[in-house]
Amino acid sequence: MTDILKIKEVIKNSQKVTIISHYSPDGDALASQLALARGLEQIEIEISLINKDPIPDAYQFLKNWECIKPLEEIPDFASVIICVDCATWERTGYLKEQLIGEKTIVINIDHHISNTNFGHLNWVDPNAAATAELIYDLLGLLQVKIDKIIATSIYTGISTDTGSFLYENTTATTHIVVADLINRGADINLVRNSYYENINISKINLLKYGLNNLSFSVDNQVCWVAFTRDVFNNANATDADGEGLINHLKSISGVEVAIIFRETTSDTIKLSFRSKKWADVNQLASKYGGGGHPRAAGCTITGNLDSVVDGVINWVVQSIAQGGTSKFGWDNKCT
Amino acid sequence: MTDILKIKEVIKNSQKVTIISHYSPDGDALASQLALARGLEQIEIEISLINKDPIPDAYQFLKNWECIKPLEEIPDFASVIICVDCATWERTGYLKEQLIGEKTIVINIDHHISNTNFGHLNWVDPNAAATAELIYDLLGLLQVKIDKIIATSIYTGISTDTGSFLYENTTATTHIVVADLINRGADINLVRNSYYENINISKINLLKYGLNNLSFSVDNQVCWVAFTRDVFNNANATDADGEGLINHLKSISGVEVAIIFRETTSDTIKLSFRSKKWADVNQLASKYGGGGHPRAAGCTITGNLDSVVDGVINWVVQSIAQGGTSKFGWDNKCT
Repeated sequence: MTDILKIKEVIKNSQKVTIISHYSPDGDALASQLALARGLEQIEIEISLINKDPIPDAYQFLKNWECIKPLEEIPDFASVIICVDCATWERTGYLKEQLIGEKTIVINIDHHISNTNFGHLNWVDPNAAATAELIYDLLGLLQVKIDKIIATSIYTGISTDTGSFLYENTTATTHIVVADLINRGADINLVRNSYYENINISKINLLKYGLNNLSFSVDNQVCWVAFTRDVFNNANATDADGEGLINHLKSISGVEVAIIFRETTSDTIKLSFRSKKWADVNQLASKYGGGGHPRAAGCTITGNLDSVVDGVINWVVQSIAQGGTSKFGWDNKCT
Repeated sequence: MTDILKIKEVIKNSQKVTIISHYSPDGDALASQLALARGLEQIEIEISLINKDPIPDAYQFLKNWECIKPLEEIPDFASVIICVDCATWERTGYLKEQLIGEKTIVINIDHHISNTNFGHLNWVDPNAAATAELIYDLLGLLQVKIDKIIATSIYTGISTDTGSFLYENTTATTHIVVADLINRGADINLVRNSYYENINISKINLLKYGLNNLSFSVDNQVCWVAFTRDVFNNANATDADGEGLINHLKSISGVEVAIIFRETTSDTIKLSFRSKKWADVNQLASKYGGGGHPRAAGCTITGNLDSVVDGVINWVVQSIAQGGTSKFGWDNKCT
């Protein structure tokens, strides 16, 4: 049971609301926060915005991004906390006791299928292309006018979370919402120029390294790149610069599973997985204590980079070799 | 004056129609041809499909692509010829006398602003994101049912001609049309898997070469790569494999003008230009006898690769150095 109407009532009766999203924030997280904040300010609600991690440069074109602060810099937060785009409370990056008191009401608005309904009130719709699509609905329900700035934010959340309308989560509704956002003044040229066509040299250097160091196996069905810390350091690259690289691997003809290994400390390796059609990489990442979606998942493994690469690739290759449509030996839920 | 209603009448009264598009066909050209053909077959019109150049592998997922033939393989063509996505008759790649007789009616359906209205009847709408968007309107006018296959074709034309809804030509109408196409069964997963995520190794190798050989000037505002014939030969790459590479250059932070030089014979260099915000590359290409749009243009220069690169870059750099918003010394029509 989705608590849409209760959420509307709680918000309308609030004087102050805190909006929080997830650590390592992406476009949908930030856009949802900022669009909701600007919308609620229109109906005289005081807003504070909290995020564990800094706003990546790539999203600093979003109006008022600098209003999002870490908890330590917020003098006072509200007893109504809206979590946007967080599948679990832990995704906020904060312990519950840091933000939730006896009287706190937690509202959970999200589109991840893995959402745990951790809020007191929950609006979780896995059919939405982005959390920002739900914010569009919520603002409509609250009869808030979607102005040019809100429209641009929501457009950004939807556009970035769908890979510019390419991913499977894109629906007819997504395009209808976007048509309305453009009619309301969404600045799609700003988003293109500031995000899609504003790739810094660090990111280009990571891509260059990646293309120069592609590895393939199982008739090119598996493609991977391993990044040492030195590669990132030499490219002067951040975590955010590494985002999206894996899509280049996945987009190669015949590749079904793309993997990026990244050494973050001398014995910690972060792995990202993507799949194209049939492989359930959520289950692959789960084997190593991670998770995500069937087409996009991640995990962290303790060990030396070379040995982690060898171990994971050997296992993936063996699993595919065992064959069939359930090529990892799992039930294939994705076809 | 657009001849929409006359075009509708001529088509409805035809028993046979030939549909032709342009040489070096792209997604919009092929998708428009195939969608229109399938639509007209529904109303009992016999169709022949002519194109000067072969269908690139990247578009061979489009249903019935193999029905498009060069003129030499068409036994009999119609007296009603519909040109789609051709700005001029010359873009068909054929001389007029090869296809046009005394009684031939030429219908010209296109979205290029540079269209010369070369048809006997012309439907040219530069506000359309793609010619396929006009085909959608035409089929509606003809009361043809847009089935799953037609919807997938039209979606392909729109998606590829807008760079997946990123380019300036994307409007609210574009998204509304696409929402309807998805509701009619457009297979967006097929398009993603077959086109966007089906990049062959030749193309990856060209991109790798490009990133390894980037040149910059004027505070990184100008970025270029020069490809010798050997690079293409060694990568086993075709013209079509080179498409899209320039967008990687343009997407780099601070780059305003991106240029790719490609040696096609020992003394023929093909140039592609793209600009991001203000530079009118149509005028730049015009200086060398080429043309296009303010943001995308091309030309061919006779000469040795190194000397052509030196000449063009020197001139672009000098022009920008002369400064102002009209940095090429032209009136800037694009801001």
